[in-house]
Amino acid sequence: MLFLSDNTARVHPQVWAAMQAADAPDAPYDNDALSQRLDAAYSELFGRDCAALWVGTGTAANCLSLATLVEPHGAVICEENAHIERDECGAPGFYLHGAKLLLASGEGAKLTPEAIEAVAAGITRGVHQVPAQAVSITQVSEYGLAYSPDELAAIGAAVSRLGLGLHMDGARFGNAVAFLGCAPAAAAGPADALSFGFTKNGAMDADAVVLFDPAQADLVRWRRKRAGHLRSKGRFMAAQLLAMLEGDLWLDLARKANAAAVLVAEGAGERLLYPHQSNELFVRLSPEERAALRAEGFAFYDWDDAHARIVAAWDTRPEHAQALGRAIARL
Amino acid sequence: MLFLSDNTARVHPQVWAAMQAADAPDAPYDNDALSQRLDAAYSELFGRDCAALWVGTGTAANCLSLATLVEPHGAVICEENAHIERDECGAPGFYLHGAKLLLASGEGAKLTPEAIEAVAAGITRGVHQVPAQAVSITQVSEYGLAYSPDELAAIGAAVSRLGLGLHMDGARFGNAVAFLGCAPAAAAGPADALSFGFTKNGAMDADAVVLFDPAQADLVRWRRKRAGHLRSKGRFMAAQLLAMLEGDLWLDLARKANAAAVLVAEGAGERLLYPHQSNELFVRLSPEERAALRAEGFAFYDWDDAHARIVAAWDTRPEHAQALGRAIARL
Amino acid sequence: MLFLSDNTARVHPQVWAAMQAADAPDAPYDNDALSQRLDAAYSELFGRDCAALWVGTGTAANCLSLATLVEPHGAVICEENAHIERDECGAPGFYLHGAKLLLASGEGAKLTPEAIEAVAAGITRGVHQVPAQAVSITQVSEYGLAYSPDELAAIGAAVSRLGLGLHMDGARFGNAVAFLGCAPAAAAGPADALSFGFTKNGAMDADAVVLFDPAQADLVRWRRKRAGHLRSKGRFMAAQLLAMLEGDLWLDLARKANAAAVLVAEGAGERLLYPHQSNELFVRLSPEERAALRAEGFAFYDWDDAHARIVAAWDTRPEHAQALGRAIARL
Amino acid sequence: MLFLSDNTARVHPQVWAAMQAADAPDAPYDNDALSQRLDAAYSELFGRDCAALWVGTGTAANCLSLATLVEPHGAVICEENAHIERDECGAPGFYLHGAKLLLASGEGAKLTPEAIEAVAAGITRGVHQVPAQAVSITQVSEYGLAYSPDELAAIGAAVSRLGLGLHMDGARFGNAVAFLGCAPAAAAGPADALSFGFTKNGAMDADAVVLFDPAQADLVRWRRKRAGHLRSKGRFMAAQLLAMLEGDLWLDLARKANAAAVLVAEGAGERLLYPHQSNELFVRLSPEERAALRAEGFAFYDWDDAHARIVAAWDTRPEHAQALGRAIARL
Repeated sequence: MLFLSDNTARVHPQVWAAMQAADAPDAPYDNDALSQRLDAAYSELFGRDCAALWVGTGTAANCLSLATLVEPHGAVICEENAHIERDECGAPGFYLHGAKLLLASGEGAKLTPEAIEAVAAGITRGVHQVPAQAVSITQVSEYGLAYSPDELAAIGAAVSRLGLGLHMDGARFGNAVAFLGCAPAAAAGPADALSFGFTKNGAMDADAVVLFDPAQADLVRWRRKRAGHLRSKGRFMAAQLLAMLEGDLWLDLARKANAAAVLVAEGAGERLLYPHQSNELFVRLSPEERAALRAEGFAFYDWDDAHARIVAAWDTRPEHAQALGRAIARL
Repeated sequence: MLFLSDNTARVHPQVWAAMQAADAPDAPYDNDALSQRLDAAYSELFGRDCAALWVGTGTAANCLSLATLVEPHGAVICEENAHIERDECGAPGFYLHGAKLLLASGEGAKLTPEAIEAVAAGITRGVHQVPAQAVSITQVSEYGLAYSPDELAAIGAAVSRLGLGLHMDGARFGNAVAFLGCAPAAAAGPADALSFGFTKNGAMDADAVVLFDPAQADLVRWRRKRAGHLRSKGRFMAAQLLAMLEGDLWLDLARKANAAAVLVAEGAGERLLYPHQSNELFVRLSPEERAALRAEGFAFYDWDDAHARIVAAWDTRPEHAQALGRAIARL
Repeated sequence: MLFLSDNTARVHPQVWAAMQAADAPDAPYDNDALSQRLDAAYSELFGRDCAALWVGTGTAANCLSLATLVEPHGAVICEENAHIERDECGAPGFYLHGAKLLLASGEGAKLTPEAIEAVAAGITRGVHQVPAQAVSITQVSEYGLAYSPDELAAIGAAVSRLGLGLHMDGARFGNAVAFLGCAPAAAAGPADALSFGFTKNGAMDADAVVLFDPAQADLVRWRRKRAGHLRSKGRFMAAQLLAMLEGDLWLDLARKANAAAVLVAEGAGERLLYPHQSNELFVRLSPEERAALRAEGFAFYDWDDAHARIVAAWDTRPEHAQALGRAIARL
Repeated sequence: MLFLSDNTARVHPQVWAAMQAADAPDAPYDNDALSQRLDAAYSELFGRDCAALWVGTGTAANCLSLATLVEPHGAVICEENAHIERDECGAPGFYLHGAKLLLASGEGAKLTPEAIEAVAAGITRGVHQVPAQAVSITQVSEYGLAYSPDELAAIGAAVSRLGLGLHMDGARFGNAVAFLGCAPAAAAGPADALSFGFTKNGAMDADAVVLFDPAQADLVRWRRKRAGHLRSKGRFMAAQLLAMLEGDLWLDLARKANAAAVLVAEGAGERLLYPHQSNELFVRLSPEERAALRAEGFAFYDWDDAHARIVAAWDTRPEHAQALGRAIARL
């Protein structure tokens, strides 16, 4: 019973079907008919004009998005647990040519306007310090917490006051929308660029860079090619994205993952480090307790000395989630 | 009847089957059982120890390979038509942090020891010029020509005299082996790093970086992650590579593509710019002649004012190839 | 009797005097009174608003100038003998983060509108090729030839048609102005950014980045600091620049260097590879002839098998130049 | 009465004299006779073979030094107040092509073995995190504190256990040696590369990259040129360095600066944030107190809300230092 990561989940049958339907000759790269439909499909989803480009990983999506907002001598303000800071092997430094990440701390790995402004206020030495040019937030955060539309509006106001761009890492954007129960546009808030991930949510390897300023699309096209991310058979990625969008499959799957996590959360109760808001839970468990759970067949990651990370996916079986919840409750 | 590019071809059924068989939970990134088998599988194929890592595009394979051989202040000697120079949007400059490509010219886009040594001999100004650190050749070349084992040995000797590394862009390595009729190791010659492509040959999006110095594998692992090319569900890429290696499917498919090109070449006769050695043909055709062929339903690229590029793929139907050959012969 | 390079020349006494006058405590970096005067001084010289920033080398001046015009995924069109291509150890690739130099050929290392347009016309493959974003020309060229105001206007028109920026490498800009006998603004033509060198012309180590779009100055300030070129005692560089501008000392010294070269050129006659237009001469001399000249005490560089490069400086003694001219004539 | 920075100080007369003596034609770049003497001069100073190369700024010295120790995908562990982190506008990210700085905290901005090991111990996620490859410490630290030979030995042991390189930012290395009263080699400890600064200590614009592994010198030569730091009249920088080394002028001047700071420190007494160990003092002074001192003619920087930074230089007049000390004591 795997609760390691939503990365370990299977590919949804509708995604498989769409990929196979795409297996006919068509123009290479992103000149095929499916890739050409992406801008319209995402524009409809968000209710405003945007450009959408497929990429194969969340790291590439984050870095290409940031490249529209930050110059090589600039900086990105992010939370110290952010994936771009801690889990991408310095990819932003590579893609942004040495631009810096300036770190703030936030409860549950969420940034606040105050934290952003405090970092900006510390930049006082003219050319001796790098200028902040963008803020990057994660929806849901590294601790699985969602930013509400009000919180996003407040961050947007701060970002706007400071003259910065706003990037949203949406590797689990679907889980945020499913939890918030709002429109996708509301969950994206005032972001200029969104890394909208489907890979953790039923796709094989397809995320999207969504640019709410479509004029930036050419820049991302050049940089995507230059980074080796323009696949020659891009139609298979477009097919995945369109299959996920079709009938809001992405949202349905995110709800399933969140619901499975609820079943675990109910058993975890007071042991939860943060309230349940997505498909990720951080649960206070001693090494001995973890060993006991593993002995019962549950797999998950150690987060730190005191906590385990438990992640449900779209294909987590409810009875497995319930079993884990009960096993924790019994401890 | 498409002769645009082997990129437009379909995914082979055995590749599909392998991908679907991989659709069960397993460890993420390249920690799954399939990815762990790659080193052994490629070592067996080449009859010597090597490390093999999956990547999603030939551009990424080329750049990650070169990163094992070239420092940011160094240079790569390549032919002026090389894909890394002309078709990758400056990706080597990105991955190698500004290292230069030093261009030589060669008949049929093939480098010779003399051409390599002439470029090296032009580097005389000490720190005012970048030092050459590697040579990159393409098997088969941009004009579809194969390097014979003897030619490779001569290049290897020159490279060795000059103290350089040797990279081989093998986007169509299978077509080279199919033409040469030699062992894969003989077609790779003294290369230190090989970009071994399957995407143009029946896979969906899976090429391999093959490192004949396995000690370089860690470097490529870091750089691959840093470039956003470490997919979280890497098992689907490993599945593709293993399916292609299984029973030498890759070689079988390359032979099919080459054989289809032969059928075209027989009709093209004297119009061929270079002898037929792979699945790519460059055929002297006036604009009017090209229009006439297109009117008959044949699709292909204009190469330059006087030539069309015609590419057969593993799934090119022999009757289509024959039809094209005859149509050209009739002109 | 040194004719190796204008780099070997002495520092002019007025420059020494200005540096010593600057040897009093003042604010560090470029916050001192002298540095603050540069924008006005260069604006007056060029008769239009510009920003001027000191840097210590021509390589830094070229690269920082280009950074205002070219993105990391872009390209610069330049002549194949250009200093940025051949003599700066890949510095543009470093400063521009992997942007490419696209090479054209020109008689006497001068670009023409036709050559520029031919390079631009070769960029046809969309994101697979890097887009040209700027042209860089050298005034005087690597072969010591000046662009006339008419030639500059024609280049400017081509650059404008293509939507590119224009950079001028003016390491020997003074020699060009001295030869052309025009206003500095006319010799700069439609350049957006000019590397205006004084180091070869009597300064110790002070060149200027001159930005005819002053709004780019902040970018250069960040990048200059980031490249380690913001000296803490910048007042000594500003002092050099202002001393050279004072009473047009720079022009007086360039005329002296050009005049010395004339004395050599008169002796060289038909042996000159190109007409005399600055302080650099390329003279047809066999190895034996060069040996004979060296035996008489003349030092110069071998350019290629058939030519020597002879460079006069501001402090070249006319009698030495005359002696060299006569020695060549006697051969 | 300036106590802003040792950057504002004058150039020492012996440095002037040496520069003027160098004002005769000689080979360009670093081929002149003076530059050729540097390796021997620094090897003698440190009592072991080393290579020494001139550069114009401490930022360039730091970055070129680090480039011998760190790859683009690597990281440098440093203290959070380090100049490379806070005052160089991201220059390490530029020179190291996106490598990260991993921050530790230390009392008085000094690193400890424990702090270094704690950062290293946090790198547990394989390729998802950048590997540490070097440690950078500052002698004296950003708070003016010196590392004793014992402390350096302990750091060296930790660095060695972890398999890292060690860089020392010695912008005020002379002040450290003057305070410690030990041999230069003892103050450099087990550093692999040292940025040895003279610019704050009586030179005009000359620091040295000192490489205790001379085999790294070629790398620095290429990178220095590529960064535009190879000046064509390098003899003037070599002259400065040799003048400072001659008769240990550098040490004499550092002692003078430290002695001036003592005079201030005696007046500051309990107000000192840290003990006096160099020419920098951080003094607890309220905004009102600072205003009062400024009204008496003393200039210095605000460090934070509660402290002023007071820096003495080699040419600080003792009576001015004494006056400031007394003025503080009177508050």
